[in-house]
Amino acid sequence: MASPSTPASTPIPASIPTSGPMSATSVSVSRTVDAVVIGLGPGGEDVAARLARGGWSVLAVDEHLVGGECPYYGCIPSKMMLHESRREDASWARVARRIREEATDHWDDRVAVERLLGTGAEFVHGRAEIAGGPATGPASDGTRVTVTPNDGGARQTWTARRAVVLNTGSESVRIPVPGLPEAVTWTHRDVVTAETLPASLAIVGGGPVGCELAQALAGFGVRVSLLVRGERLLSGEAPEAGELVAERFRSEGIDVRTGTEISRVQAGEASRYETSHGIPASVGPVDLELTTGGRLTVDRVLLATGRVPRDPVDVDDWCRVLDGAVAEGGQPVPGRYAIGDMTGAGPFTHTSMAQAAVVADQLLAGAAPRPFPRHAVPRVTYTDPEVAAVGLSEGEARKAVEHGGGDASEVHVARVDLGASSRGWIDEVRGHLTLVARAEGNADEKGTGKGSGTRTSGGVLIGAAVVGPHAGEILGALTVAVHARVPLAELARIPWAYPTLHRSIGDAIAQFGSDVIGAESGAGPAS
Amino acid sequence: MASPSTPASTPIPASIPTSGPMSATSVSVSRTVDAVVIGLGPGGEDVAARLARGGWSVLAVDEHLVGGECPYYGCIPSKMMLHESRREDASWARVARRIREEATDHWDDRVAVERLLGTGAEFVHGRAEIAGGPATGPASDGTRVTVTPNDGGARQTWTARRAVVLNTGSESVRIPVPGLPEAVTWTHRDVVTAETLPASLAIVGGGPVGCELAQALAGFGVRVSLLVRGERLLSGEAPEAGELVAERFRSEGIDVRTGTEISRVQAGEASRYETSHGIPASVGPVDLELTTGGRLTVDRVLLATGRVPRDPVDVDDWCRVLDGAVAEGGQPVPGRYAIGDMTGAGPFTHTSMAQAAVVADQLLAGAAPRPFPRHAVPRVTYTDPEVAAVGLSEGEARKAVEHGGGDASEVHVARVDLGASSRGWIDEVRGHLTLVARAEGNADEKGTGKGSGTRTSGGVLIGAAVVGPHAGEILGALTVAVHARVPLAELARIPWAYPTLHRSIGDAIAQFGSDVIGAESGAGPAS
Repeated sequence: MASPSTPASTPIPASIPTSGPMSATSVSVSRTVDAVVIGLGPGGEDVAARLARGGWSVLAVDEHLVGGECPYYGCIPSKMMLHESRREDASWARVARRIREEATDHWDDRVAVERLLGTGAEFVHGRAEIAGGPATGPASDGTRVTVTPNDGGARQTWTARRAVVLNTGSESVRIPVPGLPEAVTWTHRDVVTAETLPASLAIVGGGPVGCELAQALAGFGVRVSLLVRGERLLSGEAPEAGELVAERFRSEGIDVRTGTEISRVQAGEASRYETSHGIPASVGPVDLELTTGGRLTVDRVLLATGRVPRDPVDVDDWCRVLDGAVAEGGQPVPGRYAIGDMTGAGPFTHTSMAQAAVVADQLLAGAAPRPFPRHAVPRVTYTDPEVAAVGLSEGEARKAVEHGGGDASEVHVARVDLGASSRGWIDEVRGHLTLVARAEGNADEKGTGKGSGTRTSGGVLIGAAVVGPHAGEILGALTVAVHARVPLAELARIPWAYPTLHRSIGDAIAQFGSDVIGAESGAGPAS
Repeated sequence: MASPSTPASTPIPASIPTSGPMSATSVSVSRTVDAVVIGLGPGGEDVAARLARGGWSVLAVDEHLVGGECPYYGCIPSKMMLHESRREDASWARVARRIREEATDHWDDRVAVERLLGTGAEFVHGRAEIAGGPATGPASDGTRVTVTPNDGGARQTWTARRAVVLNTGSESVRIPVPGLPEAVTWTHRDVVTAETLPASLAIVGGGPVGCELAQALAGFGVRVSLLVRGERLLSGEAPEAGELVAERFRSEGIDVRTGTEISRVQAGEASRYETSHGIPASVGPVDLELTTGGRLTVDRVLLATGRVPRDPVDVDDWCRVLDGAVAEGGQPVPGRYAIGDMTGAGPFTHTSMAQAAVVADQLLAGAAPRPFPRHAVPRVTYTDPEVAAVGLSEGEARKAVEHGGGDASEVHVARVDLGASSRGWIDEVRGHLTLVARAEGNADEKGTGKGSGTRTSGGVLIGAAVVGPHAGEILGALTVAVHARVPLAELARIPWAYPTLHRSIGDAIAQFGSDVIGAESGAGPAS
């Protein structure tokens, strides 16, 4: 297997060495640097590296693995599982070994630490705390950060002269269920590190993580029950998305139960056994009482109940931390920045990475800095069918337009059945594509049409969603359109390749009337 | 199987009835109409329907099937074959039945004719000829068109008062090989109509049609030899594309022979037998002598030697026919338009459809008409891996820039290995993505940066190519970028969804220096 390259904008599996010079961390008790970066998930590592390469002195701190959730427990291992599960000869042993050996280096971040040190940054494995909390405190003479090393070394005091960048991420939501704390439950981390799989599994939660793991594990022969509190899977997406995914899951033998919560858990002794690696080994059955009155006996319970920011902060489009006390319209705290899950801009690796670039560009002021484009954050759930969206949903769009003083009737929606397109019919596809347009592209700043990229007098797309095969790749075209506010009149003229699935974008645009599409100021024929 | 919808921009399989009113054609010997459309492939049918719905009196003429090559013999049946061939239980009988019954209604265009008549157009199955040929003749009092009906009826004379739209398509290239005319050979049409497949097949030609059919038929167990005159498959694409496809083909058991032509064909009597439907039935072996000195014995030879325009014409960006005698810079012939393969703008359904819209918009003058966006014509070969491209290659770009008086050093190329991206590494992908940028977006009109959509002072993409899984869908993002001339500086800030394959676009853009990307005039942070 070839090693991945190390493009700046892509998290790098820890086991892939880079060629940077190695240097040992050497930390004194009281030091001043240009910047302290706290939390080294993808964006944190990236911003630390960018600043260090830009000539700043940088301290980077993380209590856990450098690289964060994504390469060790999140995106990469979960997509490896999905990929393997779709092979005819799907083998858990094979993908578990690949995750251990190729992707995570046995969950060892030594290579990632070396890569970071190679940029010139300093690094401490430990806990960092800002005097006064993340969103307050004077910063005129810099920001004081105390660091407690994991290795038991003395507490250190650092001063960030120019900036503190926070990237403390998110944590799992806990659900209060009698008996649950006493049972051995899994999170996604336990799945990723498991060497063997239980024969049966109840997954609690029908969000992206619950859905991806349900389909992946079912592909390895695990009898999966997916317990979802709400009425459908993927409640953050359009209703049809969750319904289509549920239908597919059921056809694959997954026991999808919506409107269902666990009311009580009863676990036998055996279920509490753990191996020396801390991994629960062969276990006895766990009995679940459900709010619907039913019972379920499974070998294991996996909690996929969502994540919330560990230290939520408000930031502006420049990722500057806003004083929490005044929240909306709050003043930026000098020298304080936050990126990633904690900002609420979307708990995605690509959000964190893009915010890292925004912060680094501002601080280094080399390139003309630009705000974080929050109007066009894409998201993809990698189930089959894939579920993808960018920008605003219809409901969000109406609210946002009204919030900006506009008229919600300017929001228009077009929708096509992918299965009715030529390619969709040929490939017997089930899925759909939805576009949300605003008739006039002149509105407030928050992703409803205007902004510094505006250049249209007609309509623009402000949101889009795709469910179906390769939806995540189809989303690329819509991401460009929403991000760059390409006029609908221009999109309407694209000779989309026939017969691709993304050609349905043209069919959807054709549903908008000419009053929505508007016209560019192009001249007519020369004669 | 659900019926496909009938979006205006998508060819419709003939077997799907639409709800338009039915009316019989009723043709007198001498008639005047607003427009005559000659050739009813996808674009011709579309422009006839648009004009008729716009209130024009329209005569539409085709000697063959209304709907043209694409639904009956081209895109749709070939993609159905590819789709079926990738199923675990691939069955030629099943896809052959599906093509006959669902896609082509046994190659009967009755439904398509009714759909056309339902728009108000008149229609004759027959041959049409313009007095003076396609590109000449006075048109002040309209254009005279003679029509010879297929049914043996009397020759008719029609006058097109306002426009003649030509869409006479392309025809197969014939290769001069001794013995070939005497042998029963197949074209793609024979494959599409075949009820059974030969056990072995030599395909002559390594372009998109030859490659797609080779992979599809191999998937049904046919022993395929692919004989290619040039050094690689898909010679119209980047060399690496053809090499990657050839490698895959070989791994699938296809006998790919490049640098090889047939020098002589010797066929036994049995090979000339045909069924009552005109389909060659079980045949004896055909012996091929190759220019490389080798011999090959196969059950059938399939010619996929490319297509050329049947009646090539020059058109301008408005699809107006230019006087052939003065070619470059020629004057438009009043009232004469051409669309589709004959214009040389790309032998694709989507080109013809887009040109149909350009012509109809001009003639109806309802929407502000816009030229055909020839700078961003996409193309996809639907092999696995898919091969997709839009706009200019590096070589074409340099030539075009120089031709426009620019400096070829303004052309820059970035290239990423899809297998080195996170998703590519996870999914063990082989493929690559190439971007061609022009540093300054201010050039001539012909697809090298400028045009009515220009709005940048920095670089823009003027071409892109992708080879790999879902390349055709990844191309969507690049099609928008090239078509709408989205500034590189804007593309560079997109938080592409992680971990999609199209996120590699961001990695490629990052390879361009800031002098190529340029900067938008966006303001810095507010404080």
